[in-house]
Amino acid sequence: MDTAEEMGRRQRAISVSEFFEKNRHLLGYDNKAKAMLMIVKEGVDNSLDACEEAGILPEIYVKIKEAGPDKHQIVVRDNGPGIVREQIPKIFGRLLYGSKFHRLHQSRGQQGLGVSCAVLYSQLTTGLPVSIASSTGDGKTHKYQLKIDVAKNRPLVVETKLEEGEAWHGVETRFVAECTYRENRQSVMEYIKQTAISNPYADIVFDSPYGKMEFKRGVDRLPPEPREIMPHLYGVELGVLGRMLASTKARTVMSFLTSEFSRLGKRSASEILLKAGITKTGEGGKPVPDTKLKPRRVTDEQAGGIIEAVKQVKLVRPPTDCLSPLGTELIRSGLVKELNPEFVAAVSRSPEVYRGWPFQIECGLAFGGSIQSFSLLRFANRVPLLYQQGICAMTRAVQETDWRRYGLQANKGIDEPLAIFVHICSVWVPFTSESKEAIANYDIIIKEIKLALQECARQLSIWLSGKRKKAMLTKKKSTFERYAGETAHALGNMTDVSAESIQNKILNLIKNKWGEIHGDEIEGEDQESGEGDNQAA
Amino acid sequence: MDTAEEMGRRQRAISVSEFFEKNRHLLGYDNKAKAMLMIVKEGVDNSLDACEEAGILPEIYVKIKEAGPDKHQIVVRDNGPGIVREQIPKIFGRLLYGSKFHRLHQSRGQQGLGVSCAVLYSQLTTGLPVSIASSTGDGKTHKYQLKIDVAKNRPLVVETKLEEGEAWHGVETRFVAECTYRENRQSVMEYIKQTAISNPYADIVFDSPYGKMEFKRGVDRLPPEPREIMPHLYGVELGVLGRMLASTKARTVMSFLTSEFSRLGKRSASEILLKAGITKTGEGGKPVPDTKLKPRRVTDEQAGGIIEAVKQVKLVRPPTDCLSPLGTELIRSGLVKELNPEFVAAVSRSPEVYRGWPFQIECGLAFGGSIQSFSLLRFANRVPLLYQQGICAMTRAVQETDWRRYGLQANKGIDEPLAIFVHICSVWVPFTSESKEAIANYDIIIKEIKLALQECARQLSIWLSGKRKKAMLTKKKSTFERYAGETAHALGNMTDVSAESIQNKILNLIKNKWGEIHGDEIEGEDQESGEGDNQAA
Repeated sequence: MDTAEEMGRRQRAISVSEFFEKNRHLLGYDNKAKAMLMIVKEGVDNSLDACEEAGILPEIYVKIKEAGPDKHQIVVRDNGPGIVREQIPKIFGRLLYGSKFHRLHQSRGQQGLGVSCAVLYSQLTTGLPVSIASSTGDGKTHKYQLKIDVAKNRPLVVETKLEEGEAWHGVETRFVAECTYRENRQSVMEYIKQTAISNPYADIVFDSPYGKMEFKRGVDRLPPEPREIMPHLYGVELGVLGRMLASTKARTVMSFLTSEFSRLGKRSASEILLKAGITKTGEGGKPVPDTKLKPRRVTDEQAGGIIEAVKQVKLVRPPTDCLSPLGTELIRSGLVKELNPEFVAAVSRSPEVYRGWPFQIECGLAFGGSIQSFSLLRFANRVPLLYQQGICAMTRAVQETDWRRYGLQANKGIDEPLAIFVHICSVWVPFTSESKEAIANYDIIIKEIKLALQECARQLSIWLSGKRKKAMLTKKKSTFERYAGETAHALGNMTDVSAESIQNKILNLIKNKWGEIHGDEIEGEDQESGEGDNQAA
Repeated sequence: MDTAEEMGRRQRAISVSEFFEKNRHLLGYDNKAKAMLMIVKEGVDNSLDACEEAGILPEIYVKIKEAGPDKHQIVVRDNGPGIVREQIPKIFGRLLYGSKFHRLHQSRGQQGLGVSCAVLYSQLTTGLPVSIASSTGDGKTHKYQLKIDVAKNRPLVVETKLEEGEAWHGVETRFVAECTYRENRQSVMEYIKQTAISNPYADIVFDSPYGKMEFKRGVDRLPPEPREIMPHLYGVELGVLGRMLASTKARTVMSFLTSEFSRLGKRSASEILLKAGITKTGEGGKPVPDTKLKPRRVTDEQAGGIIEAVKQVKLVRPPTDCLSPLGTELIRSGLVKELNPEFVAAVSRSPEVYRGWPFQIECGLAFGGSIQSFSLLRFANRVPLLYQQGICAMTRAVQETDWRRYGLQANKGIDEPLAIFVHICSVWVPFTSESKEAIANYDIIIKEIKLALQECARQLSIWLSGKRKKAMLTKKKSTFERYAGETAHALGNMTDVSAESIQNKILNLIKNKWGEIHGDEIEGEDQESGEGDNQAA
């Protein structure tokens, strides 16, 4: 039995590294197979982000090699811009450090946790540092061997050297970790294959323990560059507003509102100030907005008034051109390149907003051809999501769609050779956990996915009914053809006309009637879907 | 398009407060109703932990009062040992600060995140500080108004004062947050009711917006105090071992192994050293364990050897008397007190071990009486779990049990007036997320739950078959009784004997035959289950 003093003496700070080391399952390091996937994923996601930010067509090399029982060496190399020397230790050796958390900008990484947690897991399980080589193209290659000082959450440089001469740019990272290599639905192989679908402008080489595979790019241009945006007042909470008021460089509350928030004009700002009670006495004794008030002099109560006012004033929505969707052409290209389907449709919805943050949904359906069974491919900011399918908003949208309405076999699941592609892009993707495996079930997100799926499904339905009508006609025609000889023979016996000439007449009749329709049908379909180039919007 | 230098300039550290403020859904603050539950829960869990550590029978007072549209004031007060003055700001004003993370000790809190996140959420949504009053019983009451400096993750004292005179001990915390009050299956009311079940030694008063409720304690003693243990070598990973080797006060690797790990004797330690290659040349040139080697001189490779050796050497399991299960008596008391069932059974399994950490499973079944339908009550270290039932190991164990074998109606779910109580206690509960809502699906944990459920179900099955046999006999008897008059009348007509005397004889016959059996059955059952005192192990 302890006293308050004894309990007080036991109180201690916990470093964020210690926290995630003990809770590594929160970041996806639940088991050795998943750990392998997580490390590759963090490396490749960072590489793709860096290439795109620098406007470089990505070339990614991934190598996995056994390094002992249940141990593997994982190498990820890119042709990106490289990392400047002084940032290398912090980016790899410190959790919650990065460039993406404080920006509203569409990117794969967002927390500053990913690659440093891969380092943390590696050293936890093998005791070995991570090796990094980077060059920004100036002929200097900086090489580091790094660990994390877990109690302090700071980088611990084991070795560093500078090599001069070689002209290249990019980053190569080398981990040795306790993890196992498998090839199944949730493996590195599947992740890389799906990455090739959602990033068809990237060249990826995967040097696996079982052999080398190349995923060649299908298009030679990057999607439009996403733009950084300012926060929208609608999604800002009181605590954050207070901090912004305290740290702003704006001299008046009016310039604060109109310069630090997205799409807030003077008229709306005045209305908000008036409703928030940030007023002075105007002509005739009426209160008018006190636009010149210094931001630091806004009281807690007045700040609360601003938040309340936002609920009443109609604001212009946040800009949505900050997003960089793939677009239907890239979606089709990716699906055709990796899945070789008979039919493909793609839809890119207009942007929408959840909790003040813009997002955009894209879907694709690929049917038949090399596809054997049903699968759902989920992506967030172009990253494949392989785990936690059960709790994902995308899964729910697929389940809530009545696929039978579109001529598909579906009972408990969809019973067709169909791949469904769903992509959400956003400046802040609402993941259900740090391991970024599933999308939270916001109503507006589920609704957008369903609308996109329905639009694709309608196109598939038209194509399918054409295909099925054609199959029926072909069957009809072949039945007539099969019995033509026998019928001609019987008619020949009954009449004076030779069986042969009757048979020819019957076959001509069939050809005239069914042949034409048949031919038309095929041509029409070829045009629509032959190259996977269905006219989806 | 950015260069490496531009990207480098954007790199920044993220404070853990900023991280969880933006990701507050990870800690359970998904919506306003759940936020209310989380705040109450963090307060009450801390109060119960403190009372138990100090050996005090808990008296908890919870009050919820409206404080504006969608805003409530939440007060939690306890009679615990109080918090010493200098620790108050850190405990409430800093995330990842606490006494429980670095100990292997069974408690409700474990991360040092709970109550500080409730403060973070309150100030984020209302801009208001949290109010704390605490006394350790020395006549001094320390009062604080606190916020969190989010960018620094440090406490920000708004106001503090000392009041002298009143003799009390405990803590009172007062939050004002944006949250809504509801009464449903996942509400504060349900949480408090279930807390009363799993902590039947606590007095709880809940002053809700709709009225005051008292949950009186059912027993007057605390469960045995849990003991702190040392880590077991089986669950220690290489990175952690390396840190322990670097910071130990032990002078030799032998004393390090035998003093800093749980249940590791000299013989096993020698065997491990030998297999790990920590050896010197002994008599006859044979390698013998180098027991005197200084811990700091153990190489990374040798440390890796220790981890490998652990897989081969048979070690004594960690001690399990560190756990404090409720025990069958407290489980029954809690279930009877709050649910008023007709039958109750309880089982407390022996401790088991997952990943080197001891845990223990307890189950209870309460049937009929005031119970109307099926429910599953999940608890971890005596805390009710109200969310994420779908992904919890407890749910899976219930689903994988064949309830029909025990005479219960079960098709897709269980269709009986049955409450299933499942409790896991452990020095480190494997939650699936920081919000601590579900137990990870470890095989050994699921297996233990299933065994406990089966044991309870067998008892329920015996009682149920007795009850159903009794019902059948009662029906038989009443049928005979119903027709006795008519039969007697008919027999009277056919014979000279009066109908009345025949009827009496028939009724006597029934009484002799069925009355006795009937009576016995009831008595037997009363004894077994009348007071909810079924003889469950």
